[in-house]
Amino acid sequence: MKTDIEISQSVDLQPITSIGQSIGLKEDDLELYGKYKAKIDFSTIQRLAKGEDGKLILVTSINPTPAGEGKSTVTIGLGDALNEIGVKTMIALREPSLGPVMGIKGGAAGGGFAQVLPMEDINLHFTGDMHAITTANNALSALLDNHIHQGNELGIDARRVIWKRVVDLNDRELRQVMVGLGGPIQGVPREDGFDITVASEIMAILCLASDLEDLKSRLGNIVVAYTFELEPVTVSDLGVQGALTLLLKDALKPNLVQTIYGTAALVHGGPFANIAHGCNSLLATKTALKLGEYTVTEAGFGADLGAEKFLDIKVPNLKKAPDAVVIVATIRALKMHGGVAKASLTEENIPALVKGFANLQKHIENMRSYGLPVVVAINEFSGDTQNELTTLKELCETQDVPVELTSVWANGPKGGISLAKRVIQVIDEQENDFHSIYQSGMNLEDKIKSIVTKIYGGSDVSFSKKAQKQLATFEKYGWDRLPVCMAKTQYSLSDDPEKLGRPGDFMITIRELVPKIGAGFIVALTGDVMTMPGLPKKPAALNMDVDQNGQAIGLF
Amino acid sequence: MKTDIEISQSVDLQPITSIGQSIGLKEDDLELYGKYKAKIDFSTIQRLAKGEDGKLILVTSINPTPAGEGKSTVTIGLGDALNEIGVKTMIALREPSLGPVMGIKGGAAGGGFAQVLPMEDINLHFTGDMHAITTANNALSALLDNHIHQGNELGIDARRVIWKRVVDLNDRELRQVMVGLGGPIQGVPREDGFDITVASEIMAILCLASDLEDLKSRLGNIVVAYTFELEPVTVSDLGVQGALTLLLKDALKPNLVQTIYGTAALVHGGPFANIAHGCNSLLATKTALKLGEYTVTEAGFGADLGAEKFLDIKVPNLKKAPDAVVIVATIRALKMHGGVAKASLTEENIPALVKGFANLQKHIENMRSYGLPVVVAINEFSGDTQNELTTLKELCETQDVPVELTSVWANGPKGGISLAKRVIQVIDEQENDFHSIYQSGMNLEDKIKSIVTKIYGGSDVSFSKKAQKQLATFEKYGWDRLPVCMAKTQYSLSDDPEKLGRPGDFMITIRELVPKIGAGFIVALTGDVMTMPGLPKKPAALNMDVDQNGQAIGLF
Repeated sequence: MKTDIEISQSVDLQPITSIGQSIGLKEDDLELYGKYKAKIDFSTIQRLAKGEDGKLILVTSINPTPAGEGKSTVTIGLGDALNEIGVKTMIALREPSLGPVMGIKGGAAGGGFAQVLPMEDINLHFTGDMHAITTANNALSALLDNHIHQGNELGIDARRVIWKRVVDLNDRELRQVMVGLGGPIQGVPREDGFDITVASEIMAILCLASDLEDLKSRLGNIVVAYTFELEPVTVSDLGVQGALTLLLKDALKPNLVQTIYGTAALVHGGPFANIAHGCNSLLATKTALKLGEYTVTEAGFGADLGAEKFLDIKVPNLKKAPDAVVIVATIRALKMHGGVAKASLTEENIPALVKGFANLQKHIENMRSYGLPVVVAINEFSGDTQNELTTLKELCETQDVPVELTSVWANGPKGGISLAKRVIQVIDEQENDFHSIYQSGMNLEDKIKSIVTKIYGGSDVSFSKKAQKQLATFEKYGWDRLPVCMAKTQYSLSDDPEKLGRPGDFMITIRELVPKIGAGFIVALTGDVMTMPGLPKKPAALNMDVDQNGQAIGLF
Repeated sequence: MKTDIEISQSVDLQPITSIGQSIGLKEDDLELYGKYKAKIDFSTIQRLAKGEDGKLILVTSINPTPAGEGKSTVTIGLGDALNEIGVKTMIALREPSLGPVMGIKGGAAGGGFAQVLPMEDINLHFTGDMHAITTANNALSALLDNHIHQGNELGIDARRVIWKRVVDLNDRELRQVMVGLGGPIQGVPREDGFDITVASEIMAILCLASDLEDLKSRLGNIVVAYTFELEPVTVSDLGVQGALTLLLKDALKPNLVQTIYGTAALVHGGPFANIAHGCNSLLATKTALKLGEYTVTEAGFGADLGAEKFLDIKVPNLKKAPDAVVIVATIRALKMHGGVAKASLTEENIPALVKGFANLQKHIENMRSYGLPVVVAINEFSGDTQNELTTLKELCETQDVPVELTSVWANGPKGGISLAKRVIQVIDEQENDFHSIYQSGMNLEDKIKSIVTKIYGGSDVSFSKKAQKQLATFEKYGWDRLPVCMAKTQYSLSDDPEKLGRPGDFMITIRELVPKIGAGFIVALTGDVMTMPGLPKKPAALNMDVDQNGQAIGLF
């Protein structure tokens, strides 16, 4: 069996200008990055903005397990399948972070015969967006610390700097650091920490900004610290929103690439869904909606994280709700939710499947609670037994939810045609009554409680002393009506990664709130979730190499 | 008077494919990065390698002052002028670092009517080379710290990690830090520090590697730490040279851009000349030599730093010495070397000029000591008086050195024609008897003494206790015959930035040696020189912005 990278390297890519042409874009609409990648010009985006939106399909999943679900793979395969049956379809995806690429995953551009290409470039530096965000984030840190060092006119309390530095790597060593050591000419000593780039507020802003002006205005609103009088200090106070916008002007343009089967895909922006808002950029989705009759997009991790944030944070900015939601599940993953260990997944286990189905059931209920039509996609693995597949279909039927098998990993677009047809049917036939699960006028505490009780299925929320104090302070600053971006483990509906399936009667603990005023939301940190991952004992990097022709080895 | 960015934005750029065509490159030889930037394929470089080398002109300067010398400007203008008189000429330059761009300089792509374009892109993220180097450097740090954290099989002494993290920014706050704080799951607490990316050994390696294989082998040789038994630990020991090569495979390809007048320029690699080896990449110079009858290149800061390193570090790798050296000076800068304050530079001051000429004289002597033909280029400023110009010409004549006025900043190629003709004449007529100023078989101590006494004009060298101990240790490791890369202030021939002109009878103190075994040299830190700059009180970033069309403001 070929690996992902072997499949990708065997494909004859079309010039990206031809892909552009296939969706009505001229060469002048594109800024080429090599032969197979391009950014779309702002003037093109503005021109397209006058057109009508196509339909939007949001792909999400059950809580992820080490067994693998294949959400990106199904997203890509579904897009290919829709094109295969003659429906003009765009794909909108997030771009991968080097942290997981070098750490555990080795790559994140789909898999098998459902990949976006060139997967090597997409998984490595791509068009430099991540690096631009890292640089803008750290330039802000340097400028902020320089302000304090050079006289501190704004009266910033160095103990109350909340702006952290970032790297696009998994580097636990940088989670908690002391900076400015070595005496008076080496800056001001203070505690600091590094997040992974995808958790940077600048990543969130890039993914929510509607144009350059909005980007600059949001950057200016970032709160970086507090003064000795406890007043918030913003980027505008430092006067560097222009410089940051300059560093991000190209990164804001969506990236056009292609799937193995020549479907046009916009791959742009990459916040994680556990510690950030988990959706590709607004501009990519908006542009895709103008270019395709259908757009297939994904949100990160399970529907409790990515989809919830898509619906409660992105949709109000996008001003367009999905027309349908596809929830991806695998037999293997559901058996893990039913208590089976990874090593035993090859054995048929109907009771575990039935037990694990509770996780899928909760996500179906959740997505329906937003008033959205739902389709379940069972992403086939070779070890799935006929008994298991039949059981899962029957379980879905008890929920009255349409369900389809997909085999796009092994079979490409042909493996997704029944899913594609079913999704179109559901959009055409089922009612879409989209509404948020909380009122925008609610305060932070109530919004968090709504998410925990309605989406996670928890019984209640407890706020740490620190978080309680922050709720009061944020009210004073006028931040108490902002949307909430939960930071929570992806592995469980609860904040305990060990609780698989559909845990009940659990509490969620909010240990800290982080204001992201430029992005326009408040991050609520639950449990032990960390905004900087670590590397495993044997990182994927150990297997990476380049052959003598400059081709990548070890990305998959 | 138009600013640099206004001039650059008023130019109708040629498509980079046309520039490629003008030097014999087909579209397939190029990887486009937008319409006006491209990387040159490895296969093209290999094909070209069979051709003959053209002539090489190295542009250097007196010790820089706040008055400005314009070395890059003269390099670009000379290239344009050579093309103007019908000689097929290439330019090879370093790429700018965002540190100084955001800090003091605001940009580094020439000036006036002698610029490489698109200057906005070149000054910001360009083709991502700097970011790839930053990422590879910091990925190595993360992998190294992860190794120690996850059992430390190699027995690395965390107190003896010498591999530092980097950012491509001026950030004094990161010079000295503590990392790994917060308890056992947050890594191993240790002292660490960040350098600016241009000082990374990976930058040096990228600029000295002859191909992908050489790159990988050099990366594998990097010494990152010592074990508890004081044995060096290399990247190969960690097994991550493949992953680092993968991260750098595109960054290794030279970048093609154009000047205002359509001269092809390879802008690639950017080590600073004070804290690193100060020359653009070997592959860019090699490729330029194959494509042009003449190649004009520069080395950073004064001839005591950039040119010395070009001749003693780069030339042995390049296996080709310059055919002539151009030393750039300005009346203003020489007056500063003669003791005039910046505010008084507008006044004619012949005695100060005569006194300051001593600096230029020393650099002329130095370049001649390598057996190379020398031409002095006086880069005209509007305030220069006729008396001053005449005096400087006469002073040069006392040294029997050819001297020409250039006004490429104001007049473009026409302002450099006399210089161009003179350089060709000198190459055709004068003897070139290139030889190094030290023997490669000398030990580190003797090499350092040779540079200090012969090039800087110092009386002797003193080694700190630490450096003395290192000399002994490095001998044990077999590193004592490597070339030396001096880290020294650029402002003075001595290690004291206050000593302008031609200081005599001074000592140089070597405070520490840093092994760069992958790059193949030992860095000798002198005086107070720092490998991470700081920002000034009013950084250039404060004036930067983007207009509504996405055009940059405040780069100059």
